[in-house]
Amino acid sequence: MGMFKIGFIKLGNIATSTAIDLSLDEIAERTDIEFKIISFGPKMTKKEGEAAYELKAWGPQLVVISSPNAATAGPTAARELFKGTPTIVISDGPAKKEARDALAAEGFGYIILPMDPLIGAKREFLDPAEMALFNSDALKVLAACGAIRLVQEELDRTMISIAAGEPKLPTILATPEKCAQRMQFSNPYAQAKAVGALYMAQAVAGIDAAACFRLKDLEAIALAAAAGHEVMRAAGRLADESRELEKANNSVSRQPHARTGELMKKTGLLEKPEKI
Amino acid sequence: MGMFKIGFIKLGNIATSTAIDLSLDEIAERTDIEFKIISFGPKMTKKEGEAAYELKAWGPQLVVISSPNAATAGPTAARELFKGTPTIVISDGPAKKEARDALAAEGFGYIILPMDPLIGAKREFLDPAEMALFNSDALKVLAACGAIRLVQEELDRTMISIAAGEPKLPTILATPEKCAQRMQFSNPYAQAKAVGALYMAQAVAGIDAAACFRLKDLEAIALAAAAGHEVMRAAGRLADESRELEKANNSVSRQPHARTGELMKKTGLLEKPEKI
Amino acid sequence: MGMFKIGFIKLGNIATSTAIDLSLDEIAERTDIEFKIISFGPKMTKKEGEAAYELKAWGPQLVVISSPNAATAGPTAARELFKGTPTIVISDGPAKKEARDALAAEGFGYIILPMDPLIGAKREFLDPAEMALFNSDALKVLAACGAIRLVQEELDRTMISIAAGEPKLPTILATPEKCAQRMQFSNPYAQAKAVGALYMAQAVAGIDAAACFRLKDLEAIALAAAAGHEVMRAAGRLADESRELEKANNSVSRQPHARTGELMKKTGLLEKPEKI
Amino acid sequence: MGMFKIGFIKLGNIATSTAIDLSLDEIAERTDIEFKIISFGPKMTKKEGEAAYELKAWGPQLVVISSPNAATAGPTAARELFKGTPTIVISDGPAKKEARDALAAEGFGYIILPMDPLIGAKREFLDPAEMALFNSDALKVLAACGAIRLVQEELDRTMISIAAGEPKLPTILATPEKCAQRMQFSNPYAQAKAVGALYMAQAVAGIDAAACFRLKDLEAIALAAAAGHEVMRAAGRLADESRELEKANNSVSRQPHARTGELMKKTGLLEKPEKI
Amino acid sequence: MGMFKIGFIKLGNIATSTAIDLSLDEIAERTDIEFKIISFGPKMTKKEGEAAYELKAWGPQLVVISSPNAATAGPTAARELFKGTPTIVISDGPAKKEARDALAAEGFGYIILPMDPLIGAKREFLDPAEMALFNSDALKVLAACGAIRLVQEELDRTMISIAAGEPKLPTILATPEKCAQRMQFSNPYAQAKAVGALYMAQAVAGIDAAACFRLKDLEAIALAAAAGHEVMRAAGRLADESRELEKANNSVSRQPHARTGELMKKTGLLEKPEKI
Amino acid sequence: MGMFKIGFIKLGNIATSTAIDLSLDEIAERTDIEFKIISFGPKMTKKEGEAAYELKAWGPQLVVISSPNAATAGPTAARELFKGTPTIVISDGPAKKEARDALAAEGFGYIILPMDPLIGAKREFLDPAEMALFNSDALKVLAACGAIRLVQEELDRTMISIAAGEPKLPTILATPEKCAQRMQFSNPYAQAKAVGALYMAQAVAGIDAAACFRLKDLEAIALAAAAGHEVMRAAGRLADESRELEKANNSVSRQPHARTGELMKKTGLLEKPEKI
Repeated sequence: MGMFKIGFIKLGNIATSTAIDLSLDEIAERTDIEFKIISFGPKMTKKEGEAAYELKAWGPQLVVISSPNAATAGPTAARELFKGTPTIVISDGPAKKEARDALAAEGFGYIILPMDPLIGAKREFLDPAEMALFNSDALKVLAACGAIRLVQEELDRTMISIAAGEPKLPTILATPEKCAQRMQFSNPYAQAKAVGALYMAQAVAGIDAAACFRLKDLEAIALAAAAGHEVMRAAGRLADESRELEKANNSVSRQPHARTGELMKKTGLLEKPEKI
Repeated sequence: MGMFKIGFIKLGNIATSTAIDLSLDEIAERTDIEFKIISFGPKMTKKEGEAAYELKAWGPQLVVISSPNAATAGPTAARELFKGTPTIVISDGPAKKEARDALAAEGFGYIILPMDPLIGAKREFLDPAEMALFNSDALKVLAACGAIRLVQEELDRTMISIAAGEPKLPTILATPEKCAQRMQFSNPYAQAKAVGALYMAQAVAGIDAAACFRLKDLEAIALAAAAGHEVMRAAGRLADESRELEKANNSVSRQPHARTGELMKKTGLLEKPEKI
Repeated sequence: MGMFKIGFIKLGNIATSTAIDLSLDEIAERTDIEFKIISFGPKMTKKEGEAAYELKAWGPQLVVISSPNAATAGPTAARELFKGTPTIVISDGPAKKEARDALAAEGFGYIILPMDPLIGAKREFLDPAEMALFNSDALKVLAACGAIRLVQEELDRTMISIAAGEPKLPTILATPEKCAQRMQFSNPYAQAKAVGALYMAQAVAGIDAAACFRLKDLEAIALAAAAGHEVMRAAGRLADESRELEKANNSVSRQPHARTGELMKKTGLLEKPEKI
Repeated sequence: MGMFKIGFIKLGNIATSTAIDLSLDEIAERTDIEFKIISFGPKMTKKEGEAAYELKAWGPQLVVISSPNAATAGPTAARELFKGTPTIVISDGPAKKEARDALAAEGFGYIILPMDPLIGAKREFLDPAEMALFNSDALKVLAACGAIRLVQEELDRTMISIAAGEPKLPTILATPEKCAQRMQFSNPYAQAKAVGALYMAQAVAGIDAAACFRLKDLEAIALAAAAGHEVMRAAGRLADESRELEKANNSVSRQPHARTGELMKKTGLLEKPEKI
Repeated sequence: MGMFKIGFIKLGNIATSTAIDLSLDEIAERTDIEFKIISFGPKMTKKEGEAAYELKAWGPQLVVISSPNAATAGPTAARELFKGTPTIVISDGPAKKEARDALAAEGFGYIILPMDPLIGAKREFLDPAEMALFNSDALKVLAACGAIRLVQEELDRTMISIAAGEPKLPTILATPEKCAQRMQFSNPYAQAKAVGALYMAQAVAGIDAAACFRLKDLEAIALAAAAGHEVMRAAGRLADESRELEKANNSVSRQPHARTGELMKKTGLLEKPEKI
Repeated sequence: MGMFKIGFIKLGNIATSTAIDLSLDEIAERTDIEFKIISFGPKMTKKEGEAAYELKAWGPQLVVISSPNAATAGPTAARELFKGTPTIVISDGPAKKEARDALAAEGFGYIILPMDPLIGAKREFLDPAEMALFNSDALKVLAACGAIRLVQEELDRTMISIAAGEPKLPTILATPEKCAQRMQFSNPYAQAKAVGALYMAQAVAGIDAAACFRLKDLEAIALAAAAGHEVMRAAGRLADESRELEKANNSVSRQPHARTGELMKKTGLLEKPEKI
């Protein structure tokens, strides 16, 4: 049997995108999977959405389209072109249930992650360094609190379903509680901190949205964007605290991939990973 | 005049890769630049290096190849195929001066960043969550301490030189001191903390290399990799402290891009960015 | 002229209540004001609301009724009985504009503080120590980020208006931005941290509401309440960071009361307070 | 059987006062107890002490008088008026054994808490925000380290003794060790941190006393008061560390009240509270 | 003129001893001074006090005897033997004024540092690692908050007075305020933190004295000693905070020695030190 | 049998020296051992090395010479004079294996500790306070992470071997891993943090060496030295975190000395130490 071909279309800046493919093969030793990723950097208009069509020639068995707000033109155009190919949308929105149901009705899988929030994307505040710092904090929360694992487990599971001839795509609105469950916390206070950090990340979206869309005055914009980024940073520290509690119990849940692609697990740091 | 076409080939996992294209257009409003990125996720063997050739058809005016250790087969194969096109290698190695000189002799530009260190890439320790956490910490150091800005400024500068018909590619071994200078710190203790954090990041490489290549025993591997990641995390916090000092002085240097692509700058949070 | 008589009715547990009267005479040296406070501890049903009527006999010139959700029976009963006396409602709700407008239409003043959030009031989680810790964290945010000052300034201002024969009651929905403005931050990053901490406090309300009203399972309740309290604790630390930045600039705004009741101000720690 | 009537007279500013009644019915669901609280805000002269007499008309079965230094005129006047009614004095002093013995000889119960220290009550330093921040820090220490629980357990126990017709009032000089024992720490380092935090709180009293009573120069006063408040803040953080250690062991001792007023207990966060 | 000969007798364990001689020539480049130090490690009985007499043969112009409690037999014996030679006692005690006056009456200089506190010297708690950690924390407080500078300045000053033929020995009971003044803080909050940290260090002495001398039960001893060391550690962090505030202002006061032994000073990190 | 006579020659400033003798008798109650220490403070030239010869008259059974870089003239002179007496060199260098082998060939024992790094010893940066702070941070790392214990165990072991008539001197290049093993960590993450902190301490040596020996420009020197000291401070905090994790598990390994000199051990804080 050949290698599974998974394609990624990454449109615009969302923290999950920076880890999504790496999370499927974290030490680059899997022998059962091939990746191809196409992106247009920060750009995510309709033009880029359409340009992503060229991935089709590669023959991906599963396409993952990650972007901010999947309801915008770029991501919408991209997924329209991949109808017929199993396709999963990964984004921080749409927020509305009807919009998510519409995605499912069209045959798309989706994982909506409101805890991967809008950045304070205004020239009055954001520069390359600030952008990367925000992504760093967001990634810390997503990774420590279970969102990255949720995405990774769902992609792994979906690939198995497709390889088995019975494709089953995820349709998940990720909540703080669902994400945290995936991390299999041993200490419930660690879990509570993770849930709290994810709620904080969700609150960032609202603050940054004001900065990006509602406020007009330079000072108000800069202040709101800075406030949003401070909350993201505080969320990163709470996520870190959560993980430190698990370290204190030597109970950090780890799930590396075997060379064959199967998930393994270990908890004690000095334990050997074993197949699940 | 048309838009500048910059192409990226991202091979394997290096933290700089997660921010490199976004750092050129952090709010996605530049009207003078087009991006195309090709990647094969974690994979970076010769096969992927060669497959990257397809980017050529797009006609990029500048190609950036980012990867761990540029001396390995994949990145080597990729850049060989782009001879003739202005190409910049971005990587944590090669460490040796002769190898870097050879790159320059072949006409490649390079930015070598020893502070973007090897991850503890062993199944005995690394899983998707741990991988993303390491990248988060590395990105925090790179962003807060000037490495991301160094890369971004050099790419911006190179694009201008190419557009002007006089291509000048960078040949830079980034040191902690050089990176920190780019951040234009106002407070010298903030600068010292940044320099210290970057040295710590460089020290991580040595610890993780033992885990990845020299140690054979599961316990020794897990312990060394964990130690490396703890130092990375401590470096992230020192980088954060550096930035907090600048916040305390309201002197954070910000350099957003104008819509036209020019760099602007501001320091006071409530100031208006102005063209440099 | 006699002393101004201000009466307080404190119903139930809201962090603002623990500082509200003390904030008007922090060193107990004012010679122009008399206080009387009645409370029934944690209880805040209609019975207690009605019992508060006995304060009337004292002849207060201004009555302040502080409680959680002012729309519930107890606070409602209390304020009905004080119609005719200038009365200000201080609470974390009602959230809806119509309800607030109705208060104003009935002649009440109000200060609604959504950043003084619902506690995780379930026996499955809360005990006396946890209750006091939550109040401590909430009070830290309210005090460091301007909410306490907003309330204190409005009460001082209202007393002056009443004494002058032209009563003007506040009708304020406190937002993070409005609170933070009152602290007259010198460093805008300190202000951004304060705004962020207040938004976090507001987010706590939603998490705790799930624990208190929506969830039924012991584990889910305990986890949600714990998450809410972790966010409150993280908000307390961000508020502390905000104040530390101002300390670093020796620019903490202080507004002590003069013996005569007038507000004074100072910023440098070693400066003398002066009348505003 | 009717509800137990407990009355509180709160004179002046002492952190314990902000939690004392709430700690007896933290979720306001007890059906066996009624509260009435009278206070005059910050004021605590003889006049207010005497005015507290009006609580007698309510017929309290137990009266609790909380205030700074119980040896001053206000608290003294108040308790004299309640002779005959079981009365407990809660205060940070008198410090001298003879004075405490005199209280007992007069039939009063007492709980003296030297760890609820004098605030830096000088106009040169204190303003409403600083006052509330100090109370927040003091409350954190008192709550996390066992002082609040000591008071609450003693009040609960006393009410039971009165209801049983055999009144037994507490006569306790609270020490750091006695307070910490009440928290039933599982981890002895958590207990040591709690003891340490309480000793720090006691040290604050001495520093603030210099600011309030001995120093005359503005700069010296402001500096000493600020030093006292810094120690209080540091004590708050050590108390927080103590509790975090117990969280790391999932062994936080919780003692919620049942609806019937009995104390329950739980340690694991996800455990069900059970009657003691 | 020859080099000044300063002799040190170090008896037992006191944190100041670990830095006292080094503080006079921190980069070992002074050409005007010669050191000789004699010690018997942890031992400080009468026997060691007497054995210190052999230093006399070297002909020191100034003798410094540092030890815990200078009132005990060892330090007393030592200084008796050096009568006639200018001798300075450095210790954490005697605490009583009369005892200090007696020292002066006998012609000794002294610097009493109650902020260099008794260690928790009981086998039930202390081991070599814990001892060194306590010394590390104590040294941090002493160094950051001015005690080390006070000692160093006084020794430098005394040597100059002796060399000038007009010996003037210090008779100083160091207080937190006096120590902090020596650091010439620019930011008054940094100074307040330093004063607070020194008071905390003084409080440690009382806690450790209970562990060492009053308590008999193993558990009580271990708990008290651990509490004392936690307060010392917390004091270390507050001292660190103090210095960080000065770093934030780029106003750390530095006083290096010139090669000739004169004190120089600088504040900005990048400034050149200049003679005072 | 008489007491074992151990002599120390302390040349120059190395953090280990500040704890080395105290670590053999931390509560000064051993009855089997006598100490004599000679030092010349910061000075460590050939002159001081030779002057140390006077220790010989005391008849030490074991001589320990601690200093920075043992390859320099002072320490070399000192040890030459003690040939014939069992002598152990303790230093941060020589780094080269041949140099260490030469020491052993000459009959010296050695313990080389690269984690006790060079201080930033330039007048442009270092003053007495900064020197003591660096030593405090270095001592924290050495004590918490096992280096002090390694030295102490080896000295204890060597004394026993000499007393038994079969002297066996240590020849150890201490690595982070070897040091950490001595602390017998119970939690492997605590061990990883300790290893990481020790690597950071080793990295400091390189940074400070640039400041001390290679850089010429005042600003570059001050910046590099400050960066080195920031890394040392960050290492101190990571070491502290390591110990806090063991506290969280109540598993801190303690090894006090019995009165007879034997090593005892305990882990739980409230346990009784027992002979090993």
